[in-house]
Parts: sequence; C-alpha cells; structure tokens
Amino acid sequence: MKNIKSIVFDLYGTLYDVQSVSKLCEEVYPTMGDAIAILWRQKQLEYTWLRSLMDRYVNFEKTTEDALRYTCAHFELKLDETLHRRLSDAYLHLQPHRDTPAALQRLRDAGFPLGIISNGSIATISQVVENSKLGWAFDDLISVESVQVFKPHSSVYALAETRMGLPRENVLFVSSNAWDATAAAHFGFPVCWVNRRNSVFEEMGVRPTYTAPNLETMTDMLLEQQVALGAA
Amino acid sequence: MKNIKSIVFDLYGTLYDVQSVSKLCEEVYPTMGDAIAILWRQKQLEYTWLRSLMDRYVNFEKTTEDALRYTCAHFELKLDETLHRRLSDAYLHLQPHRDTPAALQRLRDAGFPLGIISNGSIATISQVVENSKLGWAFDDLISVESVQVFKPHSSVYALAETRMGLPRENVLFVSSNAWDATAAAHFGFPVCWVNRRNSVFEEMGVRPTYTAPNLETMTDMLLEQQVALGAA
Repeated sequence: MKNIKSIVFDLYGTLYDVQSVSKLCEEVYPTMGDAIAILWRQKQLEYTWLRSLMDRYVNFEKTTEDALRYTCAHFELKLDETLHRRLSDAYLHLQPHRDTPAALQRLRDAGFPLGIISNGSIATISQVVENSKLGWAFDDLISVESVQVFKPHSSVYALAETRMGLPRENVLFVSSNAWDATAAAHFGFPVCWVNRRNSVFEEMGVRPTYTAPNLETMTDMLLEQQVALGAA
Repeated sequence: MKNIKSIVFDLYGTLYDVQSVSKLCEEVYPTMGDAIAILWRQKQLEYTWLRSLMDRYVNFEKTTEDALRYTCAHFELKLDETLHRRLSDAYLHLQPHRDTPAALQRLRDAGFPLGIISNGSIATISQVVENSKLGWAFDDLISVESVQVFKPHSSVYALAETRMGLPRENVLFVSSNAWDATAAAHFGFPVCWVNRRNSVFEEMGVRPTYTAPNLETMTDMLLEQQVALGAA
C-alpha cells in the first residue's frame, strides 16, 4: 500500500455491523430477527439506488424507515408507529465490528488522518460514532447530504476526495460493500475491500486494489508497507 | 381506466417469465435451478442500477452475462465459456407468461397501439418477441440503448412517452416490477402494476394507479371501462 497518506472509511457494514439490529428485531419479532435485518438492509440499499436514479432523493433515515415498512409488510408483521420508531432508532446504535476500535487506534498512532464517507445524514453519522465512543478517531465525518445523491454516484466519491484534501491516489478508500469498493475503484481511489464474509466480488469491470478479511489485517498490511518504505 | 389511448409494457417479468431460465439452469446444475435464476435476476437488476449510477453503461446483455458470472462464483459452480454462452442465450428464449398472448390479442382487437419499453437492447427485444411468435402484437419496440442508461432513470420514461407519440396521461404503463411501476408513476404515466406473485408494493412515495393480478384481469378492467365510456 504505497503513497497512502490518509484513509476514508465507509460506515455501514465496514466500521459498524448492520446485522447488529437483528438483536432488537428478534426481541420484537421472535424467530424473525435475522430474516428481517437482511431484507431491511437489502431494501434500504435498493431504495437509495432507485431514488438516486429517479432523482427523488430523501435522506438515508427516511429510506431506512421506508425499507422497514416494506420489510414488515412483506413478512405480514404488525408495525405501529412506536415500534417503527424504536426499530429505526436501532440504526443509530449500531455496534462497531469487533476489530474496529483497535484498528482505528493503530492507524491514528501511525499518524494517518481518518474520515468517514457515508450515505447517512451528518446527524446520524455523528450519533452512531458518539454512541459507540469512537469520536476521537476521526478528522472528518462526510455525508452525502451535501450532494443529495447516494453512493455509488460519482459525486459522492468526488466529495470524499475534496474533503480529505488530498489527490485521490493518496487516499485509501475502505469498504466492505463490494459495490461501493467497485465505484471507488472506478473513480480512481486505491481501494481496500474488507471481505468480512468471504464473499465473491462484484462483476462490474474493476477489481479492488487490495483485499483483506478484516480491518486488523488491513492495518497490518498498511503499517508493514510504511515500515518497509521507511527502512528503504 | 379513463383516457387510455395506447399501452406500453415492460418486457422482463411482465410479458415474459424471467424464471423460465431456471429450467435450463436446473438441467445444467441439478437441484440449483431456482436458486440460480433468482440470484441471477437480482444481480442483473443491481448491475443495471449500479452501472447507471456510476455512469458506466454497458448493454443489458453484458450485465446479464456479468450477473451470471457472479452467480456461479457465489455458488462455487464451474462455468466455462460454452456453458456461459448457452445459459446467457436462455434470456433470448424467455417464455411469455401464459396470459400474455390472449391479452395482447384482445387489446389489439380493441384497437390499442401497443409497445414494449425494455432495458434489453433492440436486438434482444426483437429476438425475444420473434422467438415467442408475438411480433404481430407490437407497433413499437423501444430499448434504453438510445439513452444509454437503464430504468428507473427518468430518461427512459421520457423516451417511452416520445416514442408512443401521445401525452403521458394517455399511455398506460404496465409493469410487474414494483420499482419500475413506481418510477413510471413518479414520471406521470397512469400505471398498472401486474402483481403476479401477490407481493407487497415498494415504499417509495407513490402508489400504482391500478393493480391487477395478471394481464387477463388488467385487460378486463380496461375493456369494461371502454365499453362503459362508449355506452355513456
């Protein structure tokens, strides 16, 4: 990983575990927790893509609420407004993946400026980060709100480059979402795909620059390279 | 269904059964036919959406091939070039839904100009229609090729309106794909959602003007309305 001077992370699925909402779903709808969390996430993404294409942007919180409404209707589950609010709030209290805090600490200690670029509104990104007590790690929290279109529209990656304040070739883009990693690679970022589930990469004409099974290994790869360069 | 003077149909899933490829998939990969056909279709759609957002258009045939490659890799199935060609060709020989030919015949007899608006290339649309011997039914076959972006981008619906040659309020847009029906309704077409699988509609801020369980019922609704208007 040469010439990397700063790092920008995706939030949902990369630093934070979107399946962590399944616990509350399971509590509310016994035996259905995982199925709900999976369809909810799938629909949430679809709605961001479809609304962006239709030029009908609403913020990520609204697409999340709409996706939950669809999911409960699909499974024929009752969803009143109190329950709807309680479940939607779960997306504000996502758990970080187990390897996230230590990786961020090591990268900060090595002097890398760190940022987040997310579909979430700035209020949501801030809450997720604060609720998990990881606010110390980030120099910048970047939301698609300011461009009013979701990933993988190229405006989002251009926004990340501008806000990180460095040419794209010096910013490592880190995502667990293969479609997000695809778009970032097409845009010209060096990309690390964090392949947490041993998945197959998307077939959209480009490969990630690097692949790591988790953030710990990614951090090892980056810091070893830096040491090697320093020693050279 | 008032003021309807012509009808434009979606192709994949609406007039033709995309699950009909599962038969060949099952022949090639025993026990896996349905699972392959479902994931293949899901990825095919995702790739059209994502490539449109990334401004990386390739034609529908290419996204179909890429989606098949992903699907086989996901299921760890071997796919050589001969097999890849044979399976991709299945999308050129889709079966019409059972109610399609009779509905088209009745609508033609009633004097409605009929069209297809599809993500497929014009060569593919023509082949699918010819292979199923339904060429007589259509006045126009319209492909997204000329706008180089896939549904649900509004350019596609604008193209349909232009080619059908009537103001959008006089053209009934017919789709089984709830997201496609959503985009057409946002654009301003009267929309009939053909809900073949008793599904839940998408939650993206708009409802279809009409819903029918199949093309036969949709045709009944339309022709009864015409009779009532004629008698008035």
